[in-house]
Amino acid sequence: MFKRVLIANRGEIAVRIIRACEELDIETVAIFSEADENALHVQLADHAVCVGSADATDSYLNKDSILRAALETGADAIHPGYGFLSEDADFAEQVTAHGITWIGPMPETIRLVGDKDVARASMQPSGIPMAKGSEPLKNNKEAIKMAKEVGYPVILKPVSGGGGKGMYVAHNEDDLKNILDALVDLKKTNYYFEHYIERSRHIEVQIVADNYGEVIHLGERECSIQRRNQKLLEESPSIALTHEMRKQVGTLAVKAAKSVHYSNVGTVEFLLDLKDNQFYFMEINPRIQVEHGVTEEVTGIDIVRTQIRIAAGEPLDITQADVHFQGHAIECRINAEDPDNNFMPSPGQITFLHEPSGPRVRFDSGVTAGLSIEPYYDSMIAKLIVHGRTRGDAIKIMQRALKEFRIDGVKTTISLHQKILSDSYFRTGNIDTQFIKKRIATYEAQKENGKNYFA
Amino acid sequence: MFKRVLIANRGEIAVRIIRACEELDIETVAIFSEADENALHVQLADHAVCVGSADATDSYLNKDSILRAALETGADAIHPGYGFLSEDADFAEQVTAHGITWIGPMPETIRLVGDKDVARASMQPSGIPMAKGSEPLKNNKEAIKMAKEVGYPVILKPVSGGGGKGMYVAHNEDDLKNILDALVDLKKTNYYFEHYIERSRHIEVQIVADNYGEVIHLGERECSIQRRNQKLLEESPSIALTHEMRKQVGTLAVKAAKSVHYSNVGTVEFLLDLKDNQFYFMEINPRIQVEHGVTEEVTGIDIVRTQIRIAAGEPLDITQADVHFQGHAIECRINAEDPDNNFMPSPGQITFLHEPSGPRVRFDSGVTAGLSIEPYYDSMIAKLIVHGRTRGDAIKIMQRALKEFRIDGVKTTISLHQKILSDSYFRTGNIDTQFIKKRIATYEAQKENGKNYFA
Repeated sequence: MFKRVLIANRGEIAVRIIRACEELDIETVAIFSEADENALHVQLADHAVCVGSADATDSYLNKDSILRAALETGADAIHPGYGFLSEDADFAEQVTAHGITWIGPMPETIRLVGDKDVARASMQPSGIPMAKGSEPLKNNKEAIKMAKEVGYPVILKPVSGGGGKGMYVAHNEDDLKNILDALVDLKKTNYYFEHYIERSRHIEVQIVADNYGEVIHLGERECSIQRRNQKLLEESPSIALTHEMRKQVGTLAVKAAKSVHYSNVGTVEFLLDLKDNQFYFMEINPRIQVEHGVTEEVTGIDIVRTQIRIAAGEPLDITQADVHFQGHAIECRINAEDPDNNFMPSPGQITFLHEPSGPRVRFDSGVTAGLSIEPYYDSMIAKLIVHGRTRGDAIKIMQRALKEFRIDGVKTTISLHQKILSDSYFRTGNIDTQFIKKRIATYEAQKENGKNYFA
Repeated sequence: MFKRVLIANRGEIAVRIIRACEELDIETVAIFSEADENALHVQLADHAVCVGSADATDSYLNKDSILRAALETGADAIHPGYGFLSEDADFAEQVTAHGITWIGPMPETIRLVGDKDVARASMQPSGIPMAKGSEPLKNNKEAIKMAKEVGYPVILKPVSGGGGKGMYVAHNEDDLKNILDALVDLKKTNYYFEHYIERSRHIEVQIVADNYGEVIHLGERECSIQRRNQKLLEESPSIALTHEMRKQVGTLAVKAAKSVHYSNVGTVEFLLDLKDNQFYFMEINPRIQVEHGVTEEVTGIDIVRTQIRIAAGEPLDITQADVHFQGHAIECRINAEDPDNNFMPSPGQITFLHEPSGPRVRFDSGVTAGLSIEPYYDSMIAKLIVHGRTRGDAIKIMQRALKEFRIDGVKTTISLHQKILSDSYFRTGNIDTQFIKKRIATYEAQKENGKNYFA
């Protein structure tokens, strides 16, 4: 096992990784930017190294500086968390070249799954279903021709990248032309498109693969509650899946992972077309996912510890048959944003903090009272996770946890989650990826005119 | 189900009950003393009523005032928590007489189990094993004669009362005479004695009984880590029990409960004699127990919700066969006491608080930053509970949780727990009720002279 792990991240995920290391008797090295000198992850780690100034490009994305910190502190592994350098195959390669273990998939796997076109091509022989799509777009004329073949509506996606950023839906040729015109400014990015599924759920499967070819899955997560392709609330299991569908998507995910010789933990994302209950492969995220906690709650398996143990060369000590699911877990992402003001980031000092707690409540946080939320980084400051016996029970527990949550000094998405949880469509599980847009963003308006956006 | 429950308590247990009520869609009424105006339980409840001045006899023990609060707020049930009025049969009777449901056993049961002599007599026909003991002591002469019969060492216990308070061990006749002389001042209390078991573990069993005669148990708790008969750290399961012993003590507990027609939740306490692995009945605690959380973690059953549902007349919805145990849970009681100064209470204002959190950690607390710990009440301010896959795993998780715990302004027992958890005897499970006295109280001394107190 590793002696000392450097955590190339900040915030709640850095804290999460520190906790896993502590529990595995591994020393931790935090890195921090000048703005994060007093951050929680810096306080909790055994050692901490400043890697640059506040701007992430100078610190959390500063490869040379981070590598130097690892070498100087004698770290024998680097955990990249999510975001920042976690999907940077070059960095993973550089780390490995210095004799330091990369806690994640092999660099070539990161590279492969990071290029959606190559990833799709690798999956095809295994029969992983994909939304009908195009090759990367060469020019506007060809794009317009291919869109006709794929059939409108189509969704334009960047070949590299993830997290739902930079995607555009075209419902007809006029839409597409407008989008393509706008993309002239984005020539550096390669785009392709897929047939756009009108009503879908985002279903993803947690996979765990060791370095010796064993791959299992830990069930699915329902991540349809999104705003502008950013997940807000996740659940496990998904209420939309029958036992058969659950088995099917799990098998597909393992197949997808095997087809790219995946190792370490990862997530295979699917769209579930609600028209005919068909799954379509979207992408593999080659890293720990923000929402891994809901899977940990229902399986009792510590995914971050598993990640570290796999990277250290341990073979999987469980088989698929050993994975059991219990109850229902929900996660709410707590962002320092103002839901009443178009989700504008709300930096500032946390003047008072009372964290929700008690039975069946888990709070994965990167902040403490007195800390300042800096404008430089992602606005997510904590994740509230609950584990109930049933979905209804989990909703009740989340509601009471949100009710007792108090944070002063910054605005947060707590009130948004309260709206989601009390929405009748959410409560009956009648959701899709457009839920926030249809039910919540227009919540007040809708209450007034009684419109039913799902009808 | 109840519409509105009044919680006749304060601190962490009041908060715990509020959480259970919230999750059952029941409104809550907190009571508070003048010293507790800003307490967490007051902030979290839907309604709050001041019932008297700071001294508990004027407020949390003020029956008339509490009953008035319940009637004025239209509460249809009262949850007494633990301590204060929870074992006061007269109050339970008074409450019931006003048409308000008492969330606990029937007053006559409370009365019966509260008189240890009567309780023991009720158990005898069922064959519950008891430590050889005496009738209540009439006079010193008789006491000295009976002690000889029972055999030294003997332990003197008050007939009424619990929590290990007011007990004395006599190793020989001289000891006994000294104790009896001192007890002249305590004539109001009736004492009896039992043969004192030199090396024992405190093993207790959580029982759940509905109003229709169904009784099940939720396994045992290991509570041997005590200081002056006050529990400090509890576990479930107990490492000392074989599968057979576990079954045996569970069956004994259910039998004990049935023999007194017990309803609602309760705890049957046993001493396990380490000489011959025999269990001896001690007492039944007719209320929720501080350490109920470890049982909740390993069984997944919410004991406080169960309590409320049973009191509302619901029959048990599970059988003994439905109770499954998973992993290992440990609880550390966090007291505002100074372990370096003979555990003197350490009142004061909490100026900063960072609660431990993250996976497998539960923090049941009655405090927030900014609050003052008042000298009027029990010094326990929170309970830190962890749930690991194994005992070793739970110990690791607790160690990391204690390490990240920060509370400024008051001294606490955090450092004491760190000592316990790193003690080699504790880690191998080689503990008895004298553990603290032998291994920790003399910790520093022992480190120097290398003495082995267990040898």
